[in-house]
Amino acid sequence: MKKPVGNFLPAVRTGNLLYVSGHIPRGENTTGKLGSAQSIEGGYAAARGAADAVLATIERELGSLDRVVKLVKLLGLVNAEPTFTQTPAVINGASDRLIEALGERGRHARSAIGVASLPNDASVEIELIAEVRD
Amino acid sequence: MKKPVGNFLPAVRTGNLLYVSGHIPRGENTTGKLGSAQSIEGGYAAARGAADAVLATIERELGSLDRVVKLVKLLGLVNAEPTFTQTPAVINGASDRLIEALGERGRHARSAIGVASLPNDASVEIELIAEVRD
Amino acid sequence: MKKPVGNFLPAVRTGNLLYVSGHIPRGENTTGKLGSAQSIEGGYAAARGAADAVLATIERELGSLDRVVKLVKLLGLVNAEPTFTQTPAVINGASDRLIEALGERGRHARSAIGVASLPNDASVEIELIAEVRD
Repeated sequence: MKKPVGNFLPAVRTGNLLYVSGHIPRGENTTGKLGSAQSIEGGYAAARGAADAVLATIERELGSLDRVVKLVKLLGLVNAEPTFTQTPAVINGASDRLIEALGERGRHARSAIGVASLPNDASVEIELIAEVRD
Repeated sequence: MKKPVGNFLPAVRTGNLLYVSGHIPRGENTTGKLGSAQSIEGGYAAARGAADAVLATIERELGSLDRVVKLVKLLGLVNAEPTFTQTPAVINGASDRLIEALGERGRHARSAIGVASLPNDASVEIELIAEVRD
Repeated sequence: MKKPVGNFLPAVRTGNLLYVSGHIPRGENTTGKLGSAQSIEGGYAAARGAADAVLATIERELGSLDRVVKLVKLLGLVNAEPTFTQTPAVINGASDRLIEALGERGRHARSAIGVASLPNDASVEIELIAEVRD
């Protein structure tokens, strides 16, 4: 089930919790820092893309999103200039996408913070904990 | 119980774990970067304020702090200049406040890191995991 | 068992999960930012050192690494210049070391992010969640 990605895994389940690794978005206009190279609208779209990548991993791990009881906690990481303080407006892209996909089960606790850098200069990275069932 | 804050929740319970969203402090002198606009003393006080906000959310979720079995893990995020390396001295404000409020049950594992930016330019943000009971 | 480190603990167990505090490496050449003062090779070695510190804490908490059922989630924090995007290459040092020590049980979900600053200007900090047994 869990294919290693080099030396780590896309997700690990323990009991009824699924810990999903940090995921970045793919495609055009998903790189660069908020506050300079990336706009808030672009960051919002990138956060949606990162949530799509997380959802794809959950579906691969569980076989179906139906096995998600509910989401628990999202850590939203924004590749940000030190002066950029609207991280929640960016991470809303991920939260909105997760609620679209999962309905009320998609609501979650979260933090939305600005970090110095992300892999491949991605604009956003999302990690997630979900409560799941067999 | 769990009032949505826009598209996310202040806390989510799964089993006997309560995951509390990142909380920032309110009031005067709680914004600005450590290492420039904010002093260590001011950051320490801001971290106490963020812990107060976390405690208020836990109390609202559980009805009473008596239902906290113990704290588990704190992530302390400091809005920091790249040259600021005393993040533990700042996050001590949150740890000290939590132990004041909860006694030995308030002790926790933690990380205290400097981030590029936080929502509303808050000096500190705190997220927490607690073990709880009915 | 759990000796306080000032006002927080090196690790806290809840149920069969052990939450390990952020650990930094010790020794020479383990400080400074990636992208300027620290090389990728140096950062990789520092990440190995941080994983060693985490393993020492787990062993102290549990009595033996045999009581680790498996690792769950690693958060790899790289003290990074805003232009440094190779955080995974650095955190590989920790992932590789954990798999050396624990075999397949050592594989984990992870995120590898660049932060503005770390305690004592450490190049790397690692925090970890492990599934454990008595």
